[in-house]
Amino acid sequence: MKGSELEISARTKSAGHGFDNAQRDALYRTIFSRRDVRGQFTAEPIAEDVLSRVLMAAHYAPSVGFMQPWNFILIRAEETKRKVHGLFETAHREAIEMFEGEPRETYRNLKLEGILESPINICVTCDRDRAGPVVIGRTHIKEMDVYSTVCAVQNLWLAARAEGLGLGWVSILDQDRLKQVLGIPERVIPVAYVCLGYVSRFLDKPELQSVGWRPRLPLGDLINFEGFDKAADDPFAIGLLERVRKDQKKIEDGG
Amino acid sequence: MKGSELEISARTKSAGHGFDNAQRDALYRTIFSRRDVRGQFTAEPIAEDVLSRVLMAAHYAPSVGFMQPWNFILIRAEETKRKVHGLFETAHREAIEMFEGEPRETYRNLKLEGILESPINICVTCDRDRAGPVVIGRTHIKEMDVYSTVCAVQNLWLAARAEGLGLGWVSILDQDRLKQVLGIPERVIPVAYVCLGYVSRFLDKPELQSVGWRPRLPLGDLINFEGFDKAADDPFAIGLLERVRKDQKKIEDGG
Repeated sequence: MKGSELEISARTKSAGHGFDNAQRDALYRTIFSRRDVRGQFTAEPIAEDVLSRVLMAAHYAPSVGFMQPWNFILIRAEETKRKVHGLFETAHREAIEMFEGEPRETYRNLKLEGILESPINICVTCDRDRAGPVVIGRTHIKEMDVYSTVCAVQNLWLAARAEGLGLGWVSILDQDRLKQVLGIPERVIPVAYVCLGYVSRFLDKPELQSVGWRPRLPLGDLINFEGFDKAADDPFAIGLLERVRKDQKKIEDGG
Repeated sequence: MKGSELEISARTKSAGHGFDNAQRDALYRTIFSRRDVRGQFTAEPIAEDVLSRVLMAAHYAPSVGFMQPWNFILIRAEETKRKVHGLFETAHREAIEMFEGEPRETYRNLKLEGILESPINICVTCDRDRAGPVVIGRTHIKEMDVYSTVCAVQNLWLAARAEGLGLGWVSILDQDRLKQVLGIPERVIPVAYVCLGYVSRFLDKPELQSVGWRPRLPLGDLINFEGFDKAADDPFAIGLLERVRKDQKKIEDGG
């Protein structure tokens, strides 16, 4: 019987590549408690080893054709931050005019960036020429390299959360002017401009959810089967949607 | 002294939002061991609760203006998979012609998708009209909603890894034809088509790195200061780059 026991455990091992419950839960905790931080930054400096780890997380993101098309421009100087903050202010004034009525007042009062308060800003760029003109996996969808760069941003964001660092993505900026300020060449896209720093607190829910701007959508409404917006009524589909409803309720109730 | 002790621990608590070492390491383990899976899928079915969790992880991604612009089209039917696989084959033949010489032979021999072998395929889409024409944070960078959708894909990918599920992103497809197959309306972009399933093994390194297609770049070469491609020689910058070099060596050596 010894031999067959060994065989079973070898098979189990080769099939069981999941993490244990505590490790898996740590990932979900990171994902569910991650916030887009704008108003809670403190001036506490970020140590070299912490910054190294979060940048490493970004660098080990998936990339189309293994391009690794990203650069990470670290911005620490007050002078550079002030220039970028000026770009935000201009874009923000333009944005206010695009809203009307009550939404305009709500929008005007939202704190939307922490450029000056956070100790480090990072511009994550995508160099479209990094791997020559023909890239595996980018032959039919040209934006794949930009998507890879966004994956790096999301890894950075999650690593930051696990380190107790807040991250806020500032997208109310004119990209051409940002390229001028940071000396970014023509072929390179500044995909994300993020603020990074320790925080006084992480909000329980996303701020736009709390202020009633938009509700969290029920995930079940967004799951389709075989085609866009198509439903299914087989036992697996019904069971999945029921499970999704319960899981989401637990998260929204703070469980 | 009691009062001051309490004060300190309250302060420590408010500043200490990081996770403990084991939780933080679980996230890094997920990030560093995630792979783009193409050739190692097994037919083992995915249980409802596992699928619910990985889709929930995707749904709790950041989204510009809290748009949550995504839908998740689950594809289980052999017939749908065969149609999409046909699109891959056409695009793949076109792609082969774009490479020349030795790279063409290497490319031809790579396994690039697991559409038919994986039990579930998921098309993650972006509905650009989900929150009306004016969206907070999308006023100046129109692609922000697509970037949000990519963040959802990356969350899905990491959650899958922690659950022991492999995920492979199939980008060698004509998006217009994919929209026809899945009945996706004009306003909606099929951002990612992914294959999901248990695996016989996770590769130690990305396959394109192992076959020598492209090396893993030294992260230190991609970190800039204050401007694109700009260096810095202050103690923090020097210390950071030294730490990055050591951290990356440890990862590449399998530590």
